[in-house]
Amino acid sequence: MGRTSDARERILTAGADLFGRRSYASIGVAEICAAAGVPKGSFYYFFPSKQALALEVVDRHWEWQRGEWMRILTSVAPVVDRLRDLFVATAQMQSDALKGTGAVVGCLFGNLALELSTQDDPVRARLQEIFEEQIDIVEATLREAEAAGDLHVADARESAKAIVAQIEGLVLFAKLYNDPAQLESLWRSSMMLLGLQDEAVA
Amino acid sequence: MGRTSDARERILTAGADLFGRRSYASIGVAEICAAAGVPKGSFYYFFPSKQALALEVVDRHWEWQRGEWMRILTSVAPVVDRLRDLFVATAQMQSDALKGTGAVVGCLFGNLALELSTQDDPVRARLQEIFEEQIDIVEATLREAEAAGDLHVADARESAKAIVAQIEGLVLFAKLYNDPAQLESLWRSSMMLLGLQDEAVA
Repeated sequence: MGRTSDARERILTAGADLFGRRSYASIGVAEICAAAGVPKGSFYYFFPSKQALALEVVDRHWEWQRGEWMRILTSVAPVVDRLRDLFVATAQMQSDALKGTGAVVGCLFGNLALELSTQDDPVRARLQEIFEEQIDIVEATLREAEAAGDLHVADARESAKAIVAQIEGLVLFAKLYNDPAQLESLWRSSMMLLGLQDEAVA
Repeated sequence: MGRTSDARERILTAGADLFGRRSYASIGVAEICAAAGVPKGSFYYFFPSKQALALEVVDRHWEWQRGEWMRILTSVAPVVDRLRDLFVATAQMQSDALKGTGAVVGCLFGNLALELSTQDDPVRARLQEIFEEQIDIVEATLREAEAAGDLHVADARESAKAIVAQIEGLVLFAKLYNDPAQLESLWRSSMMLLGLQDEAVA
């Protein structure tokens, strides 16, 4: 049994690595098995399809990323500082990927959203939920900042969506130029989106 | 010769349609030829590879889109109104795609950027140039608005990049939710990014 569950983990690790770096359509089950060092029969013992593996990879990645977001956004720092910490962590994650793999990998959810949205409904439905959750988390932080008198926005939901969209757009640039420095302006852009003046964020 | 150039056009039209709707990796030369109604030999007479076709599809799409952007952003309307017109046109393009194909197709450049950035260098290099040009065009508009006294931004280049990133992020949501209404907030978000008050944009 130890051996069996090890194979499942290795398939998940190989899938996360490949889906993170390459186009979903370009990756076959045979390649995932080769990377994981497991026979093809093992794959189908654990996962009915590549899509089923993708769903679990997406869920695990979000579980990890949500944990990071919640840790940063519920810290004891002033609320606006927590938002800045989130953006610094986002840029850092892309820098780390560049050091580890030689490439800015971008956002797994954004990558899959653009590749699969016209064709792959179960993964797409899950990605919709994840982006809703991301916007929920940022919205809750903005409402906390409003309650503390640190900012005022006309529509916290819309502002949160604009911030998540800004993250995705700048992560796209970071990936396209293979340059995490593209994310350096995320903080200033987000402060503009929230109507905060420079002196409030210095 | 009329027949020959017709085949080339049909391959380009089929490529634009398929690359616009589906993952690049999932599309083969055989499928493009079937959609275009040409034999495979014709394809390789005109294009050395799928990548060469993709480069020409990207160039043509940008030629068209740049024409639209320039037409809107150099009109006689007040500068800030031209920016709003650009965002209305962006949302309209996604609505038209939804009516025509049943799907919000998103941004061809953004789709290819996320899919190919870790693997396909010639297309990626071209996409880098196109996004630079998009930012150039918006930056020139912002500088014109500044000269007219309509707005003041700390860094016109950075603001232009933030606006293009916001477009890409919201187009991603429009595609993910198959809902062009996701783009309705683009105007308000961009005005926030430019530090414009509500009364200035009413």
